[in-house]
Amino acid sequence: MLPIIHDKKPLIHHLTNTVTINDCANMTLALGGSPVMAEDVLEVEEMVGLADAVVINTGTLHPSIREAQLLAGKTANRLGKPIILDPVGTGATTLRTNFINELMHDIQFTVIKGNASEIKTLIGQATTTKGVDVAEGESLDFQAVHTFAAQTNQVIVVTGPIDFVTDGSRQCRLDVGTKRLGQVTGTGCMTASLIATFLGAGYGRFEAAVYGTYLMGKAGELADRQAGIGDFRTGLFNAVSLMTEETLQEVQTDGN
Amino acid sequence: MLPIIHDKKPLIHHLTNTVTINDCANMTLALGGSPVMAEDVLEVEEMVGLADAVVINTGTLHPSIREAQLLAGKTANRLGKPIILDPVGTGATTLRTNFINELMHDIQFTVIKGNASEIKTLIGQATTTKGVDVAEGESLDFQAVHTFAAQTNQVIVVTGPIDFVTDGSRQCRLDVGTKRLGQVTGTGCMTASLIATFLGAGYGRFEAAVYGTYLMGKAGELADRQAGIGDFRTGLFNAVSLMTEETLQEVQTDGN
Amino acid sequence: MLPIIHDKKPLIHHLTNTVTINDCANMTLALGGSPVMAEDVLEVEEMVGLADAVVINTGTLHPSIREAQLLAGKTANRLGKPIILDPVGTGATTLRTNFINELMHDIQFTVIKGNASEIKTLIGQATTTKGVDVAEGESLDFQAVHTFAAQTNQVIVVTGPIDFVTDGSRQCRLDVGTKRLGQVTGTGCMTASLIATFLGAGYGRFEAAVYGTYLMGKAGELADRQAGIGDFRTGLFNAVSLMTEETLQEVQTDGN
Repeated sequence: MLPIIHDKKPLIHHLTNTVTINDCANMTLALGGSPVMAEDVLEVEEMVGLADAVVINTGTLHPSIREAQLLAGKTANRLGKPIILDPVGTGATTLRTNFINELMHDIQFTVIKGNASEIKTLIGQATTTKGVDVAEGESLDFQAVHTFAAQTNQVIVVTGPIDFVTDGSRQCRLDVGTKRLGQVTGTGCMTASLIATFLGAGYGRFEAAVYGTYLMGKAGELADRQAGIGDFRTGLFNAVSLMTEETLQEVQTDGN
Repeated sequence: MLPIIHDKKPLIHHLTNTVTINDCANMTLALGGSPVMAEDVLEVEEMVGLADAVVINTGTLHPSIREAQLLAGKTANRLGKPIILDPVGTGATTLRTNFINELMHDIQFTVIKGNASEIKTLIGQATTTKGVDVAEGESLDFQAVHTFAAQTNQVIVVTGPIDFVTDGSRQCRLDVGTKRLGQVTGTGCMTASLIATFLGAGYGRFEAAVYGTYLMGKAGELADRQAGIGDFRTGLFNAVSLMTEETLQEVQTDGN
Repeated sequence: MLPIIHDKKPLIHHLTNTVTINDCANMTLALGGSPVMAEDVLEVEEMVGLADAVVINTGTLHPSIREAQLLAGKTANRLGKPIILDPVGTGATTLRTNFINELMHDIQFTVIKGNASEIKTLIGQATTTKGVDVAEGESLDFQAVHTFAAQTNQVIVVTGPIDFVTDGSRQCRLDVGTKRLGQVTGTGCMTASLIATFLGAGYGRFEAAVYGTYLMGKAGELADRQAGIGDFRTGLFNAVSLMTEETLQEVQTDGN
C-alpha cells in the first residue's frame, strides 16, 4: 500500500479497449487510484476535467472511440492534465498506424508506453509486428528512442525482457519481470494504468513511468511462484495491492 | 446454493457497462440465475420479453446503449417485468445526470441501487461526487431517501459502510461488508445483478433488495480472509456460489 | 504446454462479444496462441489477412459488429483462412436467428460450435431455448447433425453433458467435463477460442474441433476440485496452461 496514492486517490480516466478494461480498472484500484471509463463524446471533456490523469489505449478501435480519444487528448492538453498513450497494435494495420499518427500529431503526451514493435513503428523504424503482441526477437535501437523522447518532449517506455524508460535526458533500464507477463492479456495495458495512477498522484513524469513499469515487472516476479496461469494472473493483482514504498526504493532510476 | 433460484434459473437481462459486464454475468450465475446481455435495439424488446428481470447500469454510456436502455425500461414496464436501475456516476457529468433523470422520468423502477453520492444526486441533494466512486465522507439523510421511496413507489438501496434499504414503508440498515469491496471494480454493479436475480426468482421487491445487498456484504466479509486483492475478488465469487438459505436467515429485515 | 502451438503462436482474430472477450483472449494465450480483437470495419480485412484463424461469436450484437463479422467471414473465405462460428443465442431473438442465418448463407465455416439449443435452431429443429444458455433437458438428434455437417461440409460441435463432434464423415462423442462449466460465463466462447487456436496452429479441422472441446472439458474436471466458483474459474485457466500432448492422446477420436 502506497499512502501517497491512497490518500489522494487520483481519478484515472481511461479511453481504452474492451478486452482488458476490467483489468485496467482493477489494477488502478489495486494501486490506490479510482478508475473511470467514459467514452461518450458528450461527457468526455467534462470527465477529463474531473480526472487527475488520462489513459488512451488503441486496443479495440471503432469510430466513436476514435473521436472520443482525440477529444479527450486535446482536452487534457488544454487543461494541463497528464496523459499517457498506449499505442496498441500500431504497425499491425493501416487504420491503427494512421490513427495513432493522428493522435501523436494532435496531442502532446506525457508518457507513451509500448512494446518494441509498437515503439519501432512510432519512431519510424521497420518492424515485423503481427497483431497486438510484440514480434519474436524484435530488437530496438534504444539511442533512437532516447533521441525521439528528447525531440518530442515525451517520456517513452519500451516494455520487454529489459524495460527501457527515457525522457530524452534521463534514461533507465529495468531488468525485472518474467516472460509469463506476456501470457496474460493486458499486462501492458495495466502497466499504463499504473503509470497513470502515479502521474495522477503527482509523481514526476519520469518517476511515474519508471515506477509503474517496475511495479508490473515486480508483480510478475512475485506471481511467478504460481504454477498455472490463472493463479499467476490473480497473483499480479495480489502483488500490486500489497506493494509498499520499500518496493519503489528498490528501483535504480539513473544510469543505464 | 439457494434451491429456489437454482430451480427457476431466472433469466436476467443486463444493459450494462463494458467494464464489469463479465463479473455481472458470473455473479448472476454464481447465485443460480442465467445472465444475458443484449443491447442491439433490434432485439432489446424481444429479450426483455424473455427475461425474468432487467438491469439498467449507466457505467459506460454511448448513444446506442442509451437508446437501448430507454427501450428496455419502457418494455419492462409495459410487460410488468421487475427492473432495477444502477445509476452509475450520476452527478459526475451533465450527460449522466440528464440521462439518468430521463430514465427516472420515463421508467418506473422496481429497485434503484446506488452509493450515497449517486442517491443524493437522484433525490436532489448536493453532492461532492467525482467520477464513479462515492465521495469520501459523503453523508446522506436516510429519512429523505425513505420519503423519496414512498413518493415514487420504488425501493431504494444505498450501499456504503452501512447499507440502507427502504421501500417507503419498511426500511432496514445492514451492518455488513468490508471497505475492501470498494477496492474491486464492479461490486456495486454485481450487487444489482444479485438483487435482480432474487427479483427474477420471484422474491418480493424489498426482500430481493435486502438479500442481494446483504449477500454481497457477506461475501466481502468471507473473502476478507485473503491478503491480496486478486484473491479477495476470487473469494467474492466463491462465497456467493456457496451461500445457503441459512445466510439469508441471518438478515434482520425490519427495524432500523 | 503444447510445443506445436507455442512454437507457431498462431494469431487468432476474434470478432466476439463484450461479456467474455477478456476470457477468450486469456484462454487463447493459455494454450499458446496470440489473440487479437479488432472490429473496426476499417481494419477487419487487414487483420484477417494477418490472422491464422478467425472466430465469429454473436453474444452481443450491435450494427457495427454485425457488419464487421460479415466482412471478416467473407475475407477469411476469400483468403482461405480457417473460421469458426459460435452462434450464441440463435433462436432466442428474431435478430439473432436472422443474422446467424445470414452468416451461414454468406460464409463457409470451418467449424460451427454451439450448445444443443443453438445447433437445433441452426439445423431447423424446434427448440425451447431462452436467452443464451441451453434449455434444460434439450435433446438433439445427433444423426441429423451428422447429415447437416456432411451436406454443408462444415465440422459441427455440439457441447453438452456429452459433447458431439462431426465432420459429416467422422464423428465422436466426448464424455468429459462437469456441469459446473455451465456456471461460469463464456466457457463455450472459450472452447471456440481453443478450437481456433488448434486450427491456426495447423491441426486438421476435425482434430482441432475434438481437441479444443476435449481440453475445455478436461480443464473443467481438473478445476472441479475447487469448492467455490471463483477458484473453479481460475482453475480452468491453470489447467489449460498446464496441458500437455499426453492430454490430447487421451481422446478417442473415432467410433461413436
